[in-house]
Amino acid sequence: MNGDSGLAELTAATAEFAAAREWQPWHTPKNLVMALSGEVGELTALFQWLTPEESAVVMRDETVAADVRDEIADVMLYLVQLARVLDVDLVEVATAKLARNEHRFPALPR
Amino acid sequence: MNGDSGLAELTAATAEFAAAREWQPWHTPKNLVMALSGEVGELTALFQWLTPEESAVVMRDETVAADVRDEIADVMLYLVQLARVLDVDLVEVATAKLARNEHRFPALPR
Amino acid sequence: MNGDSGLAELTAATAEFAAAREWQPWHTPKNLVMALSGEVGELTALFQWLTPEESAVVMRDETVAADVRDEIADVMLYLVQLARVLDVDLVEVATAKLARNEHRFPALPR
Amino acid sequence: MNGDSGLAELTAATAEFAAAREWQPWHTPKNLVMALSGEVGELTALFQWLTPEESAVVMRDETVAADVRDEIADVMLYLVQLARVLDVDLVEVATAKLARNEHRFPALPR
Repeated sequence: MNGDSGLAELTAATAEFAAAREWQPWHTPKNLVMALSGEVGELTALFQWLTPEESAVVMRDETVAADVRDEIADVMLYLVQLARVLDVDLVEVATAKLARNEHRFPALPR
Repeated sequence: MNGDSGLAELTAATAEFAAAREWQPWHTPKNLVMALSGEVGELTALFQWLTPEESAVVMRDETVAADVRDEIADVMLYLVQLARVLDVDLVEVATAKLARNEHRFPALPR
Repeated sequence: MNGDSGLAELTAATAEFAAAREWQPWHTPKNLVMALSGEVGELTALFQWLTPEESAVVMRDETVAADVRDEIADVMLYLVQLARVLDVDLVEVATAKLARNEHRFPALPR
Repeated sequence: MNGDSGLAELTAATAEFAAAREWQPWHTPKNLVMALSGEVGELTALFQWLTPEESAVVMRDETVAADVRDEIADVMLYLVQLARVLDVDLVEVATAKLARNEHRFPALPR
């Protein structure tokens, strides 16, 4: 799968998914922020007792890796939905912010 | 800007950004999860006192809208970096999870 | 039970609990902050789809109320443990902060 | 200060504080959970780049220690307020949960 070509499709798919279940009334920005926060909490729980070294090789254990991918997926799904209802382009705002950070945190001299 | 064509570029740009500052030692998965969580906390703070109705029109106020876009950008930047160091394709895992959710939560009959 | 007389006892009990399981090496401040954050995520998930009005009467449903109490308990347990390992008196710092807030946010005139 | 005798007083003081500013309409359980989550995010940010070893001695730096105490105070204040509006006794539920955990996670043999 091409991760690049899929973000617009994914965004549209989340809209169709919510509409097919008539979940739109619950998908206020406030509620989606909470849902995003809850999923980040579940992701955090997977890493809370790991040493930095263990966290660096967390994907070597296929069971844990599956859990990590699952929680990252949930976080991404709510972030995509939040951005959609707020009409925010995730890649555009992140790219612009990274550009601003280039100035805030100058690179080391080579 | 094309949000779709930019995710791979954004991912690469975050890698270059961290490398140019020699920040990689701090960018363990564990630390990036914490950074993601901290940014979601800042996003949450923007919505905590809003009614559902106020949250639905939060982008009408240009000052607040700029803050919301800024925090969403920070969340996206750390999510992209976390996915990069874990070698997870954000769109792929989210698309796959959405497909699984189609079965877990059947759509309403038409 | 007297909630007041129990905070010092609770704090001591969490220390004994961790020691009896030899969990102290995992209970660094960093890890306990993550554990606290993860539990707040679970608490958040209980409230994410509720309207403000529903959230105000959430304790009327005994099943949900039990879940809420359980998650609040987990949050409190990790906050108590974090404060203990950092040698922070929870009531003292919160009382002092509230006093500072009295000045930051003046009360309405009567 | 006696941390034990102060929790009931602190709880009452937060009620008076909110009433004097007529903030009660905003202090729904849902909103207080979000506020708690936002403060935990700020606390998380203080620890995100620290090694476990650095986090263990974080209070040796008086400036950082003051920030840590300040964020823990904010977390405690919102937790106390959430518990108050939900009529939950923080020490009671945490003590009861710890007792249940004694059974879920048996202590090591001596």
